[in-house]
Amino acid sequence: MLSVETNEYLTRVGPGTPMGQLFRSFWLPFLFSKELPEPDCPPVRVRLLGEDLVAFRETNGKVGLIDAHCPHRLAPMFFGRNEECGLRCVYHGWKFDTEGKCVDMPNEPERSNFKHKIQIKAYPTVERGGLIWAYMGAENELPEMPDLEFLLVPENHTYASKFMVEANYMQAMEGDIDSSHVSFLHSTPDNKFTGGGGGIVRSDRLVKFWIENKNPEFFVKEHDHGLLIGARRNAGEDTNFWRITHWFAPGYTIVPAEVGNPILCNIRVPIDDEQSWHIRIMWHPERPLNETELNAFQNVGVMFPELIPGQWKTKANKSNDYLIDREEQKTKNYTGIKAVTVQDMAMFEGMGTIIDRSKEHLGTSDTAIIQVRRILIRMAENLEKGKIPSAARNGKGYKARSASIEIPKNIEFEEGAKEYLTAQKWGL
Amino acid sequence: MLSVETNEYLTRVGPGTPMGQLFRSFWLPFLFSKELPEPDCPPVRVRLLGEDLVAFRETNGKVGLIDAHCPHRLAPMFFGRNEECGLRCVYHGWKFDTEGKCVDMPNEPERSNFKHKIQIKAYPTVERGGLIWAYMGAENELPEMPDLEFLLVPENHTYASKFMVEANYMQAMEGDIDSSHVSFLHSTPDNKFTGGGGGIVRSDRLVKFWIENKNPEFFVKEHDHGLLIGARRNAGEDTNFWRITHWFAPGYTIVPAEVGNPILCNIRVPIDDEQSWHIRIMWHPERPLNETELNAFQNVGVMFPELIPGQWKTKANKSNDYLIDREEQKTKNYTGIKAVTVQDMAMFEGMGTIIDRSKEHLGTSDTAIIQVRRILIRMAENLEKGKIPSAARNGKGYKARSASIEIPKNIEFEEGAKEYLTAQKWGL
Amino acid sequence: MLSVETNEYLTRVGPGTPMGQLFRSFWLPFLFSKELPEPDCPPVRVRLLGEDLVAFRETNGKVGLIDAHCPHRLAPMFFGRNEECGLRCVYHGWKFDTEGKCVDMPNEPERSNFKHKIQIKAYPTVERGGLIWAYMGAENELPEMPDLEFLLVPENHTYASKFMVEANYMQAMEGDIDSSHVSFLHSTPDNKFTGGGGGIVRSDRLVKFWIENKNPEFFVKEHDHGLLIGARRNAGEDTNFWRITHWFAPGYTIVPAEVGNPILCNIRVPIDDEQSWHIRIMWHPERPLNETELNAFQNVGVMFPELIPGQWKTKANKSNDYLIDREEQKTKNYTGIKAVTVQDMAMFEGMGTIIDRSKEHLGTSDTAIIQVRRILIRMAENLEKGKIPSAARNGKGYKARSASIEIPKNIEFEEGAKEYLTAQKWGL
Repeated sequence: MLSVETNEYLTRVGPGTPMGQLFRSFWLPFLFSKELPEPDCPPVRVRLLGEDLVAFRETNGKVGLIDAHCPHRLAPMFFGRNEECGLRCVYHGWKFDTEGKCVDMPNEPERSNFKHKIQIKAYPTVERGGLIWAYMGAENELPEMPDLEFLLVPENHTYASKFMVEANYMQAMEGDIDSSHVSFLHSTPDNKFTGGGGGIVRSDRLVKFWIENKNPEFFVKEHDHGLLIGARRNAGEDTNFWRITHWFAPGYTIVPAEVGNPILCNIRVPIDDEQSWHIRIMWHPERPLNETELNAFQNVGVMFPELIPGQWKTKANKSNDYLIDREEQKTKNYTGIKAVTVQDMAMFEGMGTIIDRSKEHLGTSDTAIIQVRRILIRMAENLEKGKIPSAARNGKGYKARSASIEIPKNIEFEEGAKEYLTAQKWGL
Repeated sequence: MLSVETNEYLTRVGPGTPMGQLFRSFWLPFLFSKELPEPDCPPVRVRLLGEDLVAFRETNGKVGLIDAHCPHRLAPMFFGRNEECGLRCVYHGWKFDTEGKCVDMPNEPERSNFKHKIQIKAYPTVERGGLIWAYMGAENELPEMPDLEFLLVPENHTYASKFMVEANYMQAMEGDIDSSHVSFLHSTPDNKFTGGGGGIVRSDRLVKFWIENKNPEFFVKEHDHGLLIGARRNAGEDTNFWRITHWFAPGYTIVPAEVGNPILCNIRVPIDDEQSWHIRIMWHPERPLNETELNAFQNVGVMFPELIPGQWKTKANKSNDYLIDREEQKTKNYTGIKAVTVQDMAMFEGMGTIIDRSKEHLGTSDTAIIQVRRILIRMAENLEKGKIPSAARNGKGYKARSASIEIPKNIEFEEGAKEYLTAQKWGL
Repeated sequence: MLSVETNEYLTRVGPGTPMGQLFRSFWLPFLFSKELPEPDCPPVRVRLLGEDLVAFRETNGKVGLIDAHCPHRLAPMFFGRNEECGLRCVYHGWKFDTEGKCVDMPNEPERSNFKHKIQIKAYPTVERGGLIWAYMGAENELPEMPDLEFLLVPENHTYASKFMVEANYMQAMEGDIDSSHVSFLHSTPDNKFTGGGGGIVRSDRLVKFWIENKNPEFFVKEHDHGLLIGARRNAGEDTNFWRITHWFAPGYTIVPAEVGNPILCNIRVPIDDEQSWHIRIMWHPERPLNETELNAFQNVGVMFPELIPGQWKTKANKSNDYLIDREEQKTKNYTGIKAVTVQDMAMFEGMGTIIDRSKEHLGTSDTAIIQVRRILIRMAENLEKGKIPSAARNGKGYKARSASIEIPKNIEFEEGAKEYLTAQKWGL
């Protein structure tokens, strides 16, 4: 439970808001590189942290991210001409480079100095791991890119998609770090996992632990970059079964995976207060994804739901009640909804676009959620006092994996899972 | 004419508003029983008096009406599992019975006492006359169900449908108690009634009275449960023709019917400030509806307009100008709009969702409307002072019919119509 | 650049706003006569300066423009019966003539005097040049109709259409008086004009001037009725090329045309703060439009864009990104958008419905825009002090044309273009 004021603090991300400033102190992924497939290709509309922007790839391949409106008379840059290292407004021909400099102003007298006084808002970008990232902060010193493992492995180790979510980033992210819902939302009435299909092999023994034991105990360990979350279930006389999740500021959750299987990272990026991106990345730390895995991700529609063609919007969505099948719900699938991501979406979009956390009733299973809220709020408060989050200055801290393993009872979970929780193989 | 403030008082029905409280002191019909056709069937979204709720029929057939959101983290109960005498949230498995008690909380430790502290908002319901009714008030003592005749007769005496109206309940209800508009809105240019068709026989003599005499005089008699409204027209040297309407708090109007024909009751229930339900019930007090009547109601589309399949929304509606046919309007039908209900809807939806009554110019024909507004406002004011409306504690007062009859001039109308205005045949 | 307050002053046009009052002191065109094709035809919904109205043509052919709502209980007059010299509300039969007088009130007692106290809001109208005009002001003395040439020539000299624009009138009109954007927005990458096609002949020499010289110098001359705007480009040793635009209060722009070709007038009429009408009229001052011209206007879709059938909305519009063709944009057309009007629309609708002019950066090319804003604001301020704009009392001042001509360098532009800038041939 949060007060109405604290809830506002946590959820508002527009320009000038404390939480918006916190997000602006990190690199944020906002497009796939393939959405700007070649130099001088059509620009793309971007809405990020409540700001309307336009992204374009200029003649040399660099990506610009600039204000959606020309500073002259606010004409839309989206309709601009992407030509010769800059985006040119079609209203009067003003042209801007990726740094936001006005490099041509053909409608003013040649002797005019006006061009040199004009700047369009522009944010630095980088490309890494098939994603385009922006830094929207005010600091001169750029943050470090996070050394997340899926950004370091060869491209053929990874598979990614993204989904537009009609809800505030935070209630979506709370689902990611909530290890107890998997035993319900993603299960079947006869205690199977609904996220399977497509031939990816999971250990029946391990799945049985987390599906059948529905009330794990939670242990959290805060660190500079975020939170390590252990959900403990009894696995026999001598061992416990642990699902260990890694959450990193400001929006990364590495979901517990069985050793040997691809690992999943969910990224939450605020579009504005009431919408957010869900970028979903699977990667194998040791080898390229095999055909079975790629087929499961691309064609089966369970790990990665089907999209409306031409949109980053799932076919099963709020407007059609996520295509719930009530007969399936009675017999085969706890929710009657097909894809795991869409099952989650039905929950957090169904709360309304911004949940009123003053009405919640949290239990012990919400330990990690409570803690992540605290971390984000504390980071934003520190930033208001001038303290840049150390995670933004240290990309190495993001080299992590998650784990879904058995550990002897007499061994502490972080210690017992140590070799599975870091990603030291790949470096920069 | 009302002041802007009084208009607000009259029209606002959300939680905490005086008029909302008045509605909350009565039983309110909100679903047909057939919308929850069997135990453990899919739940149904309900919006009532500005509150978002979910209705479900549990394993023993009882209907629950609970908050749309789980008290845990506000996940949507609509997607819940209706199983074993309760509705279970699919996010973390919390389960609630029809009283709102949390009867299972499987994601918390077994030793936990948390479950016993959790309650979901739940309203009592009853089923009567094919309708499901809710009591949304705070009083411990339940109101009495109104002994409306259509709730007492055998089921095959009745026919009902409902329509979603994009307007505040009050301006819709004002049409129900407005006996003078029938001579215009529901007439033809050559003075016929447009509500006919399908073979139901009406007295030409009586219809002629109310179609041709367009300016009746109004007489009203207030009583504990509402208002008796007489519209008088001259019917010859010795007799007057009277259309006598019964209005009952908070939202029932029994429309004048010829003796021997089925009687109509319009019920207005606020969905929220800007939308309302129109529940429309025809019943015959003495016998089952015959085939002619059923066919006229089900298939002719005049007394009961055609619906968009799968919705309680008329095919002819605001978005398509009620399918007005301007050529028909010139020659055959005063409005060019087919169904009587839709003719009404065109009027009160066309006013805007909440009419600004400070701009009205009321005449003598608006006598009943003025009086009903006063009654509702007085009842709400009394309730604010702690006085529960006596109608809510006395169901017997609702045993009424309406009438459309000739009465000798020397006899007072209530006296002259006495035998037709009460429904003593059917009891509980 | 304007302050936020001045921008509000300039753009708000609802009842009681200063700029709204200014518009209300002139005759405003709001419908084509053909939209009310015959006596007693169906009424038409009109929204003008933020007021909801209904227009109807009564039995004698006169056009009424009255409040959208009946003064009785605010029922919608749009569904009314247009019969025997008045529009009759179908709810209770109240009937109003074009002056707004209540001429029948059949639901009240015959002896009642109520009818004579009732008036519906009604505005005077006139028909001229195939358009219906309204005067929405409070003054008893009517303004003079503007003697715009296209209102004076025979009907077969003219061609007109109109388009609903999702933007405030002012940012649309700013495009009309902005002579420098034509060299960009309406050009091709190889310096041709995109507004051609359909066989209308333009001088290559002149087009080349304004397409290739993209930074003309601006000269403005204010007069009682508006602004004369000259855009000067060098045309050789001894002559300059001038595009001379005439802007008239409150919303007429006569666009520069080559002598001998049809002339274009763009009219901007505020629907409300966030929408406006673009009425676009071509006329030939000397002769009927020929077949080539009519075909170019009706069928080619460049000077007059294609409409959605049954609507005054262009097929290429905001919801489909104006059907931009990015490949065309690269090679054949500066914008990739087909029609000139739609190219403009993409710009000013893309700014948002009301541009925030405090964020602009204006240059010397914006001279005319700055001046027209000043004139409108000054006129509105004077009107607040009781001074009716003299243009509203002198229709003769509107007898003007525009020009696109070469003038010897030693001759002042208004002097040099004199014979082309006035329209003395046609009188009243």
